[in-house]
Order: sequence, then C-alpha cells, then structure tokens
Amino acid sequence: MRTMKGVGVSPGVAIGEVRFITGAETVERSTVDDVDAEIRRLHLAMDTAIVQLNALHDETARNLGEDKAELFRSHALMVKDPDFVEQIESIIRSHVNAEFAVHEAGEHFASVFADMDSAYMKERASDVRDVAQRVIAILEGKSTANGPDDASKLIIAAENLAPSQTAQLNRNAVMGFVTAQGSSNSHTAILARTMGLPAIIGVGDALSNDVDGRMMLVDGSTGEVVIDPDQKTMEEFKARREEYLDHVRMLNALKGKKTVTHSGQAVRLYANIGRPSDMDAVLGNDAEGIGLFRSEFLYLESDDFPSEDRQFAAYREVAEKMGGKHVIVRTLDIGADKQVDYFGLQAEDNPALGYRAIRICLTEPDIFKVQLRAILRASAFGNIAIMLPMITSVQEVQDARAIIEEVKTTLNDEHVKFNKDIQVGIMIETPASVIMAEELAQVVDFFSIGTNDLTQYTLACDRQNPHLKRFADPHSPAVLRMIEMAVTAAHRHHIWCGICGELGADPSLTETFLKIGVDELSVSPGSILLLRKAITQA
Amino acid sequence: MRTMKGVGVSPGVAIGEVRFITGAETVERSTVDDVDAEIRRLHLAMDTAIVQLNALHDETARNLGEDKAELFRSHALMVKDPDFVEQIESIIRSHVNAEFAVHEAGEHFASVFADMDSAYMKERASDVRDVAQRVIAILEGKSTANGPDDASKLIIAAENLAPSQTAQLNRNAVMGFVTAQGSSNSHTAILARTMGLPAIIGVGDALSNDVDGRMMLVDGSTGEVVIDPDQKTMEEFKARREEYLDHVRMLNALKGKKTVTHSGQAVRLYANIGRPSDMDAVLGNDAEGIGLFRSEFLYLESDDFPSEDRQFAAYREVAEKMGGKHVIVRTLDIGADKQVDYFGLQAEDNPALGYRAIRICLTEPDIFKVQLRAILRASAFGNIAIMLPMITSVQEVQDARAIIEEVKTTLNDEHVKFNKDIQVGIMIETPASVIMAEELAQVVDFFSIGTNDLTQYTLACDRQNPHLKRFADPHSPAVLRMIEMAVTAAHRHHIWCGICGELGADPSLTETFLKIGVDELSVSPGSILLLRKAITQA
Repeated sequence: MRTMKGVGVSPGVAIGEVRFITGAETVERSTVDDVDAEIRRLHLAMDTAIVQLNALHDETARNLGEDKAELFRSHALMVKDPDFVEQIESIIRSHVNAEFAVHEAGEHFASVFADMDSAYMKERASDVRDVAQRVIAILEGKSTANGPDDASKLIIAAENLAPSQTAQLNRNAVMGFVTAQGSSNSHTAILARTMGLPAIIGVGDALSNDVDGRMMLVDGSTGEVVIDPDQKTMEEFKARREEYLDHVRMLNALKGKKTVTHSGQAVRLYANIGRPSDMDAVLGNDAEGIGLFRSEFLYLESDDFPSEDRQFAAYREVAEKMGGKHVIVRTLDIGADKQVDYFGLQAEDNPALGYRAIRICLTEPDIFKVQLRAILRASAFGNIAIMLPMITSVQEVQDARAIIEEVKTTLNDEHVKFNKDIQVGIMIETPASVIMAEELAQVVDFFSIGTNDLTQYTLACDRQNPHLKRFADPHSPAVLRMIEMAVTAAHRHHIWCGICGELGADPSLTETFLKIGVDELSVSPGSILLLRKAITQA
Repeated sequence: MRTMKGVGVSPGVAIGEVRFITGAETVERSTVDDVDAEIRRLHLAMDTAIVQLNALHDETARNLGEDKAELFRSHALMVKDPDFVEQIESIIRSHVNAEFAVHEAGEHFASVFADMDSAYMKERASDVRDVAQRVIAILEGKSTANGPDDASKLIIAAENLAPSQTAQLNRNAVMGFVTAQGSSNSHTAILARTMGLPAIIGVGDALSNDVDGRMMLVDGSTGEVVIDPDQKTMEEFKARREEYLDHVRMLNALKGKKTVTHSGQAVRLYANIGRPSDMDAVLGNDAEGIGLFRSEFLYLESDDFPSEDRQFAAYREVAEKMGGKHVIVRTLDIGADKQVDYFGLQAEDNPALGYRAIRICLTEPDIFKVQLRAILRASAFGNIAIMLPMITSVQEVQDARAIIEEVKTTLNDEHVKFNKDIQVGIMIETPASVIMAEELAQVVDFFSIGTNDLTQYTLACDRQNPHLKRFADPHSPAVLRMIEMAVTAAHRHHIWCGICGELGADPSLTETFLKIGVDELSVSPGSILLLRKAITQA
C-alpha cells in the first residue's frame, strides 16, 4: 500500500483501476527539404484540429452546457491566430519540421501569457499549450482522444490534464482523476467539479506511470490518494464513498426547500458570482438570489474599458436567468489587488488603503456612468439592485446617488426602459461604514457586509500577508461585534443587512449570525445547500 | 517691491537689511609637485579645523545647550576619519592640490550618505560637506566665520546655510535668515527654532546675491519674503511683528500655569518626543509630561540592534530631566513606513497592514526583551510607563504582559532596581482596539489614541497617499465617534484615555475633546502653550 497527498479540487470518493495517460511526448526536431509542402501539411493539420475542436464544443455543450463548451470555440479560434501561424511558418521556412515549429511557437506564446500580470491571462498559457499539443498530435498521426473508451470503471492519472483532455473523458468510464501538476483555479479543475468527478491535483513526483493498472482510492475532499490499498483501507474508502453519496443525496433533497430555522426565523441564501457562466452552479444549487455579482470580470478580461452593450448583455443574462429573484450588482471594484493596465492607476505604497472601487468611480464619473447605464438598462429585464463598494461616509453615498440620478434622467430622455425604483445598497467593509451605520442606513436600501475587507481594516492585517496568521483571527470578536452593530443599525431604520464575505459560509458562525439577526447570507454556490442544512437544523 | 515665497521653518517676523553670504566657491584644481608637503599642509589645516570646531562646540553649548552643540563634536571627529583622510591623501598623491582633494573626497562621501535609505544617514551628507568646506576654507586662508560681526541688525540670505554657519551667526546682529535651498528637517532649521530666529528655506532661484544690501521683510510663519517693501507693506509687517511678540509673551505667561477650563475641567498637556535632544523644547514649553516617547530613533539611527545600555541611557536621561513627571515610552514601532535593514523584514504588498510594531515584538521576543530591560531599568530613575502600539486584541496584551513579567523576574533575580508597579498602557490606533475597548480597559492602565493610524484604518485611506485627499477627511465623524467610544470605555473601567496623534493639537477640535472627556493631550512641544491657551479660555 502506498499513499500520496495532493490538493482536492472536486469532492467525492472514487475506487478503481488506474490508467496513466502520458501527455505530449518530447517533440523531435528534424530537417525538412520541401518547406512549402511542410507548410501545406501544417494547414491540413490545423484544419483537422478546428473540426475536432468544433465537434468537442458541440459535445461538451450537450453534456455540460454551453458555458463550459465556449472554451473550445476559443481554442478553435486560437489555432489559426495570424501571429501564431506566422511564427510557425517562419520557423518551418528555416527547414524545421512542422511538429517542432508548432511546439516552439506554442511555448513562445504560452510564456508570453504566463508572464502577464493578470491571473486570467496567465491561465491562457495552458490553453495555448493545449491547442499546440492537439495540432502536433494530428501531425504525428495520433488521436488526442485520451482515456478509455471501454465500459470498465477507471481512474485517470496523468502528469497534467489539459481542459480539452478533461472534457473528452468518457463520463461513463471515468470515475475520477489525479494529476501530478495543475492549479486549483484551472479550467480542468472547474470542469471536474461541473462533471461531478472526484479530482486531485498537485500530487507531485510521487505520481508516475508505475501506477498504471493498479488499484487506486481517491478522496477528492481530503486530497488523499492510496495505491494498492489493504483490506481495511479499502473498507474505509467504501464507507466514505457511501457517506459522500448520502451527503449529496441529502443536499439534493434540500433543493426547492425554504431556508427557515425550527423556530421560524427565515434567512435568504444568495450566491456570490463572478461572471454569467457561474449561473449553472447558481441554479444547480438552488440559490434564492444573487447577493454579490462581482462586475470586475468585465474589466479584468478586457484590453480596454468594456462597452455599455457588453456590460448590459452580461447583467441582462444573469437577471433573466434568475427570473424575478434578486440580482445585486456590485459596481466596479478595481484597485488594490485587482489591477487593470488601461485604468492607468499609479503604483501605491499600500494599495489596499488606496485609490480603488467607489473612489475611482466618484473621481472618474465617466467610467462609472457607462456601468450605471448598463445596469439600469438591464434592470428592465429582472430584479436588479446596485451595490456600492468601499463606502466610508454619507457624502460618498450622496455623491454616487447624484450620478445615478443623472444617468436615470438621461435614460428617461432617451426613452430607454429601466426600473425607476431600483434599489441602491452599500457594502459594509470599512470600519467607518460600521461606525456610521446609523446615518448610512437612512440613505440606502440595504447593507451587505464584506467580511474580508472589514476584517483586514479592523485588525490592520493584510489578508494576503502570510506572516500575519497569528494576528489575523478570522473569528475576531471585534469583527463579529461590528457585524452586530451594522445589523442593529439597519433594522432600526427598517432596511435589511446581509453578509457577502467568506465568513458567511463558515458553518461554525451560522448560529451567531442567526442570533444577530442577519437577513441574508451570500456565499459561493457550492456552499448554499450546506448552509441551508445548517440553518434548517438550527 | 518684490515678493518671494518659501517654507517657513521658524516663526517670527524680521525687518532689516539683507546680507547675502556666498557659500563655498568653486574649488580650483591645480597640480602640485611636492606631494609630501601638500599632505603636511592638509594635516595642519585639519588640526586647525578641529580646534575651530571644538571652540564652536563650547560656544554653542553655552548659548544653546549641549544637545545642540553635540553636532560639532561629531564634525570634529569626522575631520580625521581614517577613510576620509586616506582618500584625500590618495588624491593628493596623484599631484592634485589639497583643496581640490578635500572637495572631491567630501563630495564622494556625501553622495554615499545621500544614497542611503535612512533619512538620518541622508542628513549626514550635508554634515560631510560642511566639514569639507571648513577644511577648504582654512587651506585657502579664509575665515569661515560668516555673517556680520558689527552691531547693525541684518537678515542673512544665502544659497544654503550649513549648521555650523547657522550656529556661528552672531545672535546680537542677526534677526533672521532666508535660504534658496534647504530642508525643513535639517539641523539648520532646528537650530533656527532653538535660536528663536525667524527663518525661511526653499525660496528657490528667486533668491540671489542681487538682494544684498536691500531692505527685507521676513515672516517665518507664512514663508513670505518681501524685498524693497513699500510703506504700506512695511507697516503691515511691523504690525505682524508686534502681534507675534505679543503672542510669544502671552504664551510665555502661560508657563507654569495649570491647564484647566473655566468650568474646572483639567486636561494634562503632554509632549510627543522622538529623542532625548527634544527635551529642551519640552522643558521650554512647560510640558506636564511625555505622552509619547517614540523609541524608534534608537533603531533608525543605528546600523545594528541598539544595545540595552544605549537604550537605557536614553530612557534614563529623559526620565531624569522630567523629574517625577510621567514619561510614556512607546515600545518599538518599526515596520510600515519605518524600515530598518538589519531587521531583515520582507517586502510587503501593504506594509501599513503588515508585520510591524507589537507584531514584531511578540514574534521575536528576544528583540523585545532588550528594550523592556532598558525601560524597566530606567524606571528606577523617574516616572516611566510602557505603551504598546498596534494592539488589536486582549490576547496580544496578555502575551506582551507575560514577556514583561518574565523580564521583571530576571531583573529581580539579578538584583537590578526597577519600578515593580510600572504602568502598562496601549495605543488605541486600530479599529479593533476601539471595538474591544471595554475588554482592553480591564487589562491595561491607560489608553492613548493614535489618531493618524486610527484614521487611516477606519477610512481605509493610506495617510501618505496624495490621491485620497477627497476621501481622507481628517475630521471624519467616524473617527471622532471612535475617540468617544474609547474614552467612555476607559472611564467605565477607571483608567485614563489620552490622544497622542496629530489631531490632538488641532485647536478646532479642542472643545470636542473636552466634551468627550479626554484626559490628556500629547502634542509636539511647540503646540503645548497654544493648546493651554485654548483650554484655559474654553
């Protein structure tokens, strides 16, 4: 028996035989005489790759939804990217074989992406490698359809799995996967969760092809991997699997149920989302609303300010999918650790205490107005509300409201439809907003407490600084007391107060939040049913 | 009439004829044949410089006190610094005249100091230039005794004034000075304030030797300089001078008086100091105690951890000079914008929310204990208290107190004298400490509110970020409410609560602080008598 440890990125327990699949092998360099013939061979392979990727797109859309399939549409576009093709052709022209040329150009573009500042662009590096690998496999006459096609139940092990490999796994034959490398935010990890496959990444060098054909146990919740288990361990994992399946069944049974305690106290369970593609998870986990729609993705995944129409489309899509349920859009929260080049923000000594969020919007109302127009237009298509981040004073709310009113007047003049009574709330995430909660509650429609920032400012501890663990108590009594102060002030002025920070999903605090009288908890979609269970049993 | 504007570094109004004194002229390079004779000439000049500097030290000590004179003792030591001498001699050996060699070596060492990270070391660059200039003047056969010796009343103007030039100004003949360059933290500015001379620096290129011999008006409070004034302006400055002198007389009359309002409410007026040499100002302005003795100077002005004895000497000196009056020593507040190389702190994304102050002391108790031993030993020589910065929880106070108790036990075992009942208080400068004030008041002897940090964390605005002016209201109602919360909690548990941040000296808030019941205001020495006036009239 051998045990290994990795990072669990998708929960569940799998028991079965391992199939170790090898990734791209070393690409050999050779000399070609007929450069033009080699370039023709390249283009034929690229055409085949595009056909494959479009087919993969269609199949993934059918099985996992259009949102997950989109990726392969963009892979198909990458194949014939003019810069990519030009570089490959130029390498071939120096009498290099097409396989090696694709490999070289792929690595070059991947490293350009990997060096970029944005996490989104870094992730694109693995997409480029995935595409290059596909073209190389076609050139080499290999199939890229990795994994088993037979009916046996297998666990896939690999050095790494590209998103396209993951999506192509036969769901009837594959029960889970384990990789030596990988990142928990990769498309591969996201796909595993969507497919409901237990998955572990980052096991490291311990995982190699000598595991092929052996019996393996995988616990995607704990990151445990066991090879050649003894009888006792096998029994234990079987019991874990039953427990997990019971758990999943129990959570599924909570879908469609109300979130009310034994004593009749109702709490609304909303979801935090980062982009429209999160809506599958929102609907699948029966969220009662969107408590925090982070609008930053529109700015972070763009090379320039996103147009009003692009923003409108995103807000409208979410609003429509939620039907009449609440969709709370937080306005632009750029700055601090979220930097976007085209905003031209200056470097700051303490960006977390810097020029960010509402401060940018109030200073540059022209940027703010584009977003407000998009949100207001989308408000005609669902139950949208506006939430302002980083508020520290009544004056800031009044300034923001004046801009909102100005935008409303313009839309009115243009005969554009919008919800004239759209609600405007604020994040309670600065200590000042807690202290001024009485006054703020009189000028807004709701509060939502951002516990991450509130904790960092209250304790004066950067939440991303690894040296401060001893001093950054996430359950700090000071923060809990401030949550109570905000809720009390809100109720005194007849508005509701929720929590949309990480703390909201912490089940050890659920009872405290119920006692304080928190009206809404907005958490990641995967935490909703767990919290509903905790609340209905409280 | 011509007007100019500079930075007023020492208040008061001067009216008189200008004497523009030129600094070091260009040093000519020439070839010498007898290198050994030139080196002997150098050493003779250096010996003369040392004699001059020792005389200047003695005279300054008599006129302005030993603290101000110390500088010239260190200048005297610099003259024959082995590295300095070695470099000059090596330049002379390539057949260069001594004047030019001293100039070159002086500029070299000055630029090494100027490139250092510490503001203290940067300031040393001008000391080196001052010393080099003196030696060059002696070599050239000139006197360095600048400025007028006659009985006429003059205002000195210059490109720049070295500290030694400033100290040598004949106080009976000179009524003020104005320079084109200069920094407000320089020794020159400090000397001007000590000498009670109105002074303006940084007037820029507008000030040149064409002002020599003209009539000049100087207002050291506003930074205004007027040349060839018309009758009206002359009258106005005469009135200002009378007003200023009345003001000084009025403040002097408040020395020795109690700080009590009409209705009998007493407030203690303490001083913030940065080093023992600030004691002249503390005593001269009749401070009732030291509310904040920043201990950082010991660490910032050193290349390695300051020894226990060095710290002890500093704390003892202040304690003894204050007699039985309170001396509150704040323990180490390194980190954030105060960086010291030998601490080996890592760069942080948000140093203001980082590993600093008490967090360093609790993590590295060996550094903390040296300081605590020094403070405790000094407590046998006066009324010293310990103040802990950046507290956010009761646990941190308990951890710090445990270390203090450990140090006390060791001192006891060593039969070293100290005040066994030494008071331990905390800075209230994080939002958490305000929210937890009820609990904290039960484990400490006093509170002192650090309004600068408290404001920056409460409003989530870096106080040194120039882009946040619109959002960083120094009179934020949230901060004022938090001050009230801290005072109320302190009084409920029968401890006192003061303010030692910049806000404490703001006369527009004095009435508010009196109403809240603040027990102590600790401000820069120069603000004490002004505040006493405001309070006694309230």
